Amino acid sequence: MKKTIGILGGMGPLATADLFQKIVSLTAAGSDNEHIRVYIDSNASIPDRTAAILNGGPDPLPAMRDSLRKLEACGADCVIMPCNTAHYFLPRLQGLTDIPFLSMVEAAAAACRVRFPGGTAAVLATRGTLSAGLYQAALEKAGVSYLLPEEAERDALMDVIYNGVKAGAPPESYRVRFLSVLEALSGRGADYFILGCTELPLAFRLLGLSQPGLDPTEELAKAAIRFCGYPLKG
Amino acid sequence: MKKTIGILGGMGPLATADLFQKIVSLTAAGSDNEHIRVYIDSNASIPDRTAAILNGGPDPLPAMRDSLRKLEACGADCVIMPCNTAHYFLPRLQGLTDIPFLSMVEAAAAACRVRFPGGTAAVLATRGTLSAGLYQAALEKAGVSYLLPEEAERDALMDVIYNGVKAGAPPESYRVRFLSVLEALSGRGADYFILGCTELPLAFRLLGLSQPGLDPTEELAKAAIRFCGYPLKG
Repeated sequence: MKKTIGILGGMGPLATADLFQKIVSLTAAGSDNEHIRVYIDSNASIPDRTAAILNGGPDPLPAMRDSLRKLEACGADCVIMPCNTAHYFLPRLQGLTDIPFLSMVEAAAAACRVRFPGGTAAVLATRGTLSAGLYQAALEKAGVSYLLPEEAERDALMDVIYNGVKAGAPPESYRVRFLSVLEALSGRGADYFILGCTELPLAFRLLGLSQPGLDPTEELAKAAIRFCGYPLKG
Repeated sequence: MKKTIGILGGMGPLATADLFQKIVSLTAAGSDNEHIRVYIDSNASIPDRTAAILNGGPDPLPAMRDSLRKLEACGADCVIMPCNTAHYFLPRLQGLTDIPFLSMVEAAAAACRVRFPGGTAAVLATRGTLSAGLYQAALEKAGVSYLLPEEAERDALMDVIYNGVKAGAPPESYRVRFLSVLEALSGRGADYFILGCTELPLAFRLLGLSQPGLDPTEELAKAAIRFCGYPLKG
């Protein structure tokens, strides 16, 4: 029996579409029937994860649990989430289901070691992801050295993510802010960038940037394809 | 209570991602929570629709019904399908559920009248869609004049769709074949092209074509956004 993927999505919706598109594009398939069956709940009602972690905003867990139940009803064999910050809630979500979650943060950390051996990563992420220490823990476990953005750079990243990509703003409106963060981190010794918020690979693509970057969405897509036992393209 | 969308997908998987992405991009939303909740079953096990219509291939209806049941379990308020040829089975599927289907073919025909008043459409589609007369019926009902591809042009379109886009082949490998069909139909009086197979808007984009075209996937996305009562962008 072939394995299937459940995407606990909507965090954000465009990032959900991006993850799904990457699963399809990275599967070595010559016809519709050679692809993986994917169930998606793009649940736009999930409260903001960063606000919940930092400011006592509404708890996203009940809405995430509702999506989990729908993916269980469909029969998903694994669950993945196109939101780095949501991984803060992964241990609690895993306690609610027998379906294994695949972690985007761990997939990205493992890929850093393979793709940039000995290099220093800069972690670009939301304040929620950074404050929760999600990447710090995974990178230390994987033996990958890293830098974190400073306060003003975190503000700039939040602006790019929320007022730029999530708001559907024209990419040119956030180019300068985003580039200034990349340049500052390069100046402090970063060799490459972990695009550790699912809106950031979108920003990279929309702005046509070519800085060395690691896309956790892509690494999660590959991990899910492997889990399901399908061949990877290329 | 806000309305939700169910996508009976996997026909094909890349077209499913394209439809979902268009729903997200065409919704006027300033944050994750202003988007529509979308349930997707990208069911790669659905047998080929054209083969079933033309050559007595395996019946896709049981697998489509299975997806329909999953979308019902999720609680979708409408169902849409990112496959023109699958619309041949829509009346039978509608008989199996109380959830209303929104027809991509009808959405496209209505848009032709608005966007290209008085113009003559060329219907680019699979042999299954053309033989079933899906667009012919909808365009006649909408009062839109049209041309159909000839035998050799239908062969070329099937090749672009199946051995090109669905097979993930490099776009340049099918550029000449596809352009020859567009030029022949223009020569016979077509003013614009209905990209009446969900792989064809992908081919148009991948090849960077700028001929006047109507994208039924986009029109279906707009119809679904309107059905759910959300504002359209732009």
